[in-house]
Amino acid sequence: MGAEVIKIEAPGEGDPIRRQGVIKDGLSWYFANYNRNKRSVTLDLYSAQGKEILRRLIPSCDVVIENYRPGIMDKMGFGDEALKALRPDIIHCSINGFGTSGPYRDRPAFDFIAQAMSGFMSLNGGEDDPPMRAGPPISDLAAGLNGALGVVAALLRRERTGRGDSISVSLLSSMIGLLSFQASNYFASGELPPRTGNDHGIVAPYGLFETADGQVAIAPSNDAMYEKLLDALELPELRAHPDFRTNADRMLNRASIKAVIEARTRQKDSHHWIERLNQFGVPCGQVLNLQEVFDDPQVADQQMAIDVPHPDGQQVRMLGFPIKFADAPCQARSAAPALGADTDAVLEDLGLSRNRIRELREQGVV
Amino acid sequence: MGAEVIKIEAPGEGDPIRRQGVIKDGLSWYFANYNRNKRSVTLDLYSAQGKEILRRLIPSCDVVIENYRPGIMDKMGFGDEALKALRPDIIHCSINGFGTSGPYRDRPAFDFIAQAMSGFMSLNGGEDDPPMRAGPPISDLAAGLNGALGVVAALLRRERTGRGDSISVSLLSSMIGLLSFQASNYFASGELPPRTGNDHGIVAPYGLFETADGQVAIAPSNDAMYEKLLDALELPELRAHPDFRTNADRMLNRASIKAVIEARTRQKDSHHWIERLNQFGVPCGQVLNLQEVFDDPQVADQQMAIDVPHPDGQQVRMLGFPIKFADAPCQARSAAPALGADTDAVLEDLGLSRNRIRELREQGVV
Repeated sequence: MGAEVIKIEAPGEGDPIRRQGVIKDGLSWYFANYNRNKRSVTLDLYSAQGKEILRRLIPSCDVVIENYRPGIMDKMGFGDEALKALRPDIIHCSINGFGTSGPYRDRPAFDFIAQAMSGFMSLNGGEDDPPMRAGPPISDLAAGLNGALGVVAALLRRERTGRGDSISVSLLSSMIGLLSFQASNYFASGELPPRTGNDHGIVAPYGLFETADGQVAIAPSNDAMYEKLLDALELPELRAHPDFRTNADRMLNRASIKAVIEARTRQKDSHHWIERLNQFGVPCGQVLNLQEVFDDPQVADQQMAIDVPHPDGQQVRMLGFPIKFADAPCQARSAAPALGADTDAVLEDLGLSRNRIRELREQGVV
Repeated sequence: MGAEVIKIEAPGEGDPIRRQGVIKDGLSWYFANYNRNKRSVTLDLYSAQGKEILRRLIPSCDVVIENYRPGIMDKMGFGDEALKALRPDIIHCSINGFGTSGPYRDRPAFDFIAQAMSGFMSLNGGEDDPPMRAGPPISDLAAGLNGALGVVAALLRRERTGRGDSISVSLLSSMIGLLSFQASNYFASGELPPRTGNDHGIVAPYGLFETADGQVAIAPSNDAMYEKLLDALELPELRAHPDFRTNADRMLNRASIKAVIEARTRQKDSHHWIERLNQFGVPCGQVLNLQEVFDDPQVADQQMAIDVPHPDGQQVRMLGFPIKFADAPCQARSAAPALGADTDAVLEDLGLSRNRIRELREQGVV
């Protein structure tokens, strides 16, 4: 969104993500995706000289964002009070596993653990499956989104009040924040929601239906939509069927309504049904793999895969930007930096001489 | 976060979520959760008089957020140009299925369809399962988070430039935005990532391990963590085992390393292993159901379930706030409104007389 982001990395090794995922011509495309538009400065934050440089850098920063375990920043000399002394209106965002207080605050965390302990896994997967982790690391991603939202909200508030803030976002609470109607239903009824796989917990028919050449996902979310589905399928006789009159009836007879609909959808191919159901206004779509997704004309129109030139000549394909601003669109302004690519420039801006920077490099501080 | 939110609902029926999920004493707790801190105004936006009232309301609003299909706001007379004419620095946020352009822009959408068409389902579930929808409606939730982030970012930019913006966030692009390392790996290699259930796509050992009384999730994310795991399990002899030396070796021998570890973890109960692994700094945790989650002392400490008093006397339990601001914490300032609870107050603020409001109500406009 246009922010200047300075990523502080350990000298020599840097962010471990630089070595994760598929490496192409020495570059992790995973790292390249998540570090575009950033600058890289190496700094040994366990050394007195490294800390001194960070202390000189912070006054020019609006925001400090970090993912140490709670308390570590304090131990390093960069707790909230120390940060405020360096810049009174600083915004500090801690992204952590479990929160900055409570019995588990010092535990190490990881995406999978937050998925397990948040109840998310207890809702994901088929009825007869074990609790299932989501494929992508969604607790990392949800915490990242919450962190970004918290930071931008604090910046907006600061414009009006002149005050900064300290923000904590945990993987665990971010996942709990996604429990949606399942949490509400549990709170209201005391009953544990079951895993329902591709069926909906409270709506039927709904799910994957076999066609002549595959499957389509169909999601008629209410009675009006169900009527449209019957019209599209040319199954008007189902309207009067006593087993299927209300959503409650259809939930009770979920297997039989599915069988009736599938007997019909199997007669034509997926393409036919996608076109026809959309004509009738019924939400539907195919289950696509990543190749089909990124070959899809809608995904291309929305520029959800972009090619970013890297200094070594590679065109690195990565995810596009999901938030589309008409006036000020997000852009890949620069490729992910090599480790420490911006150390000299940033340290010179802080007034350090080239000789001093060379010394610090020889000592392993940068 | 303190915003005044006026929810416009259709007279008579209102938001369908008012009738979804478990209803307790006439109140949907799902609706109550997602509509706290909002006001409710009824307005028939298909009537000329309803549109006229909306036109009078918009100049006092910073943001208009809506989830019509693209183009519908234009047809109703509230396209971007019309909104700007009413308030030049307005921020308009459209949350839609597929985007405001492209071949599918007019299609109806629903959480499940975005999960299917984004490739997310192709990555979720066990190796031998069909592609699996995530339990909670995460495309709705991810799009909501992106929408909130986009709106707050545009508000911040407006403080500096005086300009508003028009933002589009789609369910489909929001889900594609969550594809993370799986997308990067596909882009770099051209190979489709498999579903790996509770195993990690690129790290082993990792996953659910049986204990004497259940299972624990263990996630040693790198070699250093794997060494700590061996120490915690008192299995130092594995260090030198030729099958398990590097992560690449362990990925090739994933089943056998899992079997060796499980032979050990089965000897003690989950509580023992959670304590011991955490002592050694290995990320781990139990798979909890929603009851266990909301009985957990850490979740209580983080106030991730809160009780909000409703005017009818019910204490409605709902999810807490995942973003913790130290200086300006999010709060449940008011219960979800009854349908049209704020119509009179908002219309009077616009200068409409009580008689006029009564007339509009009789005509079904409000």
